[in-house]
Amino acid sequence: MTQSLIWSPISGGITAPIGFQAAGLSAGLKPSGKPDLSLLLAPDDAVCAGTFTTSVVRAACVDLCADRLQVTSGRVRAVVTNSGQANACTGDRGLADSLLITEAVADRLGCSQDEVLICSTGVIGVPIVIDPLLAAVDPLVSALDPDGGAAAAKAILTTDLVEKQIALEAVLAGRRVRIGGMAKGSGMIHPNMATMLGYLSCDVAVACDLWQDMVCRAVNRSFNAITVDGDTSTNDTFLAFAAGDVLPEDQLEALEEGLTLVAQHLARSIARDGEGATCLMEVQVEGTDLETEARQIARTICGSSLVKTAVHGRDPNWGRIVAAAGRAGVEFSAEAVALWIGPHQLMSDGQPLPFDRAAASAYLSERACGGYLVDDTVQIRLSLGDGAGQAIAWGCDLSDQYVRINADYTT
Amino acid sequence: MTQSLIWSPISGGITAPIGFQAAGLSAGLKPSGKPDLSLLLAPDDAVCAGTFTTSVVRAACVDLCADRLQVTSGRVRAVVTNSGQANACTGDRGLADSLLITEAVADRLGCSQDEVLICSTGVIGVPIVIDPLLAAVDPLVSALDPDGGAAAAKAILTTDLVEKQIALEAVLAGRRVRIGGMAKGSGMIHPNMATMLGYLSCDVAVACDLWQDMVCRAVNRSFNAITVDGDTSTNDTFLAFAAGDVLPEDQLEALEEGLTLVAQHLARSIARDGEGATCLMEVQVEGTDLETEARQIARTICGSSLVKTAVHGRDPNWGRIVAAAGRAGVEFSAEAVALWIGPHQLMSDGQPLPFDRAAASAYLSERACGGYLVDDTVQIRLSLGDGAGQAIAWGCDLSDQYVRINADYTT
Repeated sequence: MTQSLIWSPISGGITAPIGFQAAGLSAGLKPSGKPDLSLLLAPDDAVCAGTFTTSVVRAACVDLCADRLQVTSGRVRAVVTNSGQANACTGDRGLADSLLITEAVADRLGCSQDEVLICSTGVIGVPIVIDPLLAAVDPLVSALDPDGGAAAAKAILTTDLVEKQIALEAVLAGRRVRIGGMAKGSGMIHPNMATMLGYLSCDVAVACDLWQDMVCRAVNRSFNAITVDGDTSTNDTFLAFAAGDVLPEDQLEALEEGLTLVAQHLARSIARDGEGATCLMEVQVEGTDLETEARQIARTICGSSLVKTAVHGRDPNWGRIVAAAGRAGVEFSAEAVALWIGPHQLMSDGQPLPFDRAAASAYLSERACGGYLVDDTVQIRLSLGDGAGQAIAWGCDLSDQYVRINADYTT
Repeated sequence: MTQSLIWSPISGGITAPIGFQAAGLSAGLKPSGKPDLSLLLAPDDAVCAGTFTTSVVRAACVDLCADRLQVTSGRVRAVVTNSGQANACTGDRGLADSLLITEAVADRLGCSQDEVLICSTGVIGVPIVIDPLLAAVDPLVSALDPDGGAAAAKAILTTDLVEKQIALEAVLAGRRVRIGGMAKGSGMIHPNMATMLGYLSCDVAVACDLWQDMVCRAVNRSFNAITVDGDTSTNDTFLAFAAGDVLPEDQLEALEEGLTLVAQHLARSIARDGEGATCLMEVQVEGTDLETEARQIARTICGSSLVKTAVHGRDPNWGRIVAAAGRAGVEFSAEAVALWIGPHQLMSDGQPLPFDRAAASAYLSERACGGYLVDDTVQIRLSLGDGAGQAIAWGCDLSDQYVRINADYTT
């Protein structure tokens, strides 16, 4: 994780902040029998901000979340998440099932339906296995626990190999503040199961509008800066809850740093767990006029099949990086380009530099996921001029394994 | 090929039109020793229209082609093409080498340097192997032949498995008109006039501005409608020559049909020969307001890693198709969506239909490149409403083989 002077990791995930409870269990939605239903319950003074997929084709649950956040001005209490079926492209039944589920959860919690959100992840075009789910609402609510973060983080997964959760703590204006998070997916679309879902909790309060702005900026610098395969999902959702005493305004910047760190940790975890990935790619672009331009180029590089396959082959085929930058849709002067892979500089002032190909290949080969005491991150840095814009994007390599996983998924 | 009432296939490729000569040979630029240098010579009254990559990072040869077409108002005579080194991102040397080569060809042909264009394809960041190339200019010019189309078509290839050439003939206003074409490309293919190289010849004359407009429209409906891996090259170039008697204006529409058919044949050949491809994907989108909107959606579907891997697995995982359409950046009503894979309808009015999964899988499995008497084209049709806009895009599946080819390309 990026170093911070004030934020330190703690345990507990999404339920580390005071007042949050969660649960996760197997409701029988997945043929595998793995956990597939989770619930997050926020304190009654919580405010929730959400960001959603930009796809024209959105699952009914996404529209429902967006509507309810608007109706309640962000004052929602709970999110139920099912994994196994995305409930997207399921026609009228999609909304009907989402309403049934949130109604059942609201009844059992004793709150209004509008205060309950729902996220779904799984195969597109397949309706939720509704009866077993409804039957599991009662045990799910009974299982709510202030230490339930790990169970919830497990129950939202689909083809993910590992749980993705984190919690940070800082002392702001003399009081302890905690931020927790969990996520699932392998990109803005999880290749098979079609979804990135992210959840964040925080035990101080921030005014609703301010909170939404902070969350949007944090999402732009984290989830919106990763790509696994370029496919944006029908179900992508990020929900962030803040509840507790109001934080003094002069501490908002410090809080936003924490938010961003949690979101970036979760986003990087998703990229690292990208289907078939053998390493994490971190691409830093600097020297553009705007941060958004730098991010667009960084993300285009991360998304390039040619860059991804070269990294998979641990091949310093740097021309592909510059070619990807060139097609990103941002103007820059080819004469100003400088490029590094790890510590190896490959271009300066738009001119290729002689470099030690064997050493650059060795740098790439030494980066691999899954080992201990091994750095899993391939770092690429591209400088494009003197502008103040800079951004980082994350992705992963493209392996034969990715193709096999996705070619064989529903059959 | 799409049926035409007036245009019929003939042999001869790029040199089928009267007055065009071509040659191809091995100059020693490729370690494999395969043919790597070609030359196309047009009649002295030829007019040439060009479309080029939209990438910010363009090879020096691309800039040189664009400049010379401007300086000469399209009155160029010859194109020399080297394969093996793309000569992109090679610093100042890139332009110097391109100038040296065109100068040598012009001297030998006895024309001005400005009348000679150059295209390069191969690895980015690697300079052209210049001395063997210069030594080969004399034998190259000596080898020019009115039957040289096939030799030229072979010498422009890199990772392509097959040559891509075609010629058509029609009788327009009582006279025989021929159009020939050749192309190369199988990776870094997302032409956005886009190393996709394409060449066309025609033995009637058209006023320069009209010719450029006709060529642009044909390129939008062919090369700009294919994608293999979403990566737009630094070197993409399409050059189209017209030379001969002027065609009466009332025949221009018929000529443009021929142009478009030749360009579409070449574009489809590139998609079919996409690295690791086992089938061609043809995606037809209809019912948008604009043709450009339909093309954008069709191309996004063709470019989706999830759709491509599903097709590779011969898996009718249709949700991925609709999800890709949803993120294409074009507004449409999800309630109006209808979808077919081959003869199998999967959605109507935005609702999923029951379908015979085994039959749909069988349809996909029966489509495969490389066999005789086998249809190699997977057809996908998406209707989005009542608009008059429609377009077709072509792509290929994403296989383990694609990853292996690209992970191991330079090492």
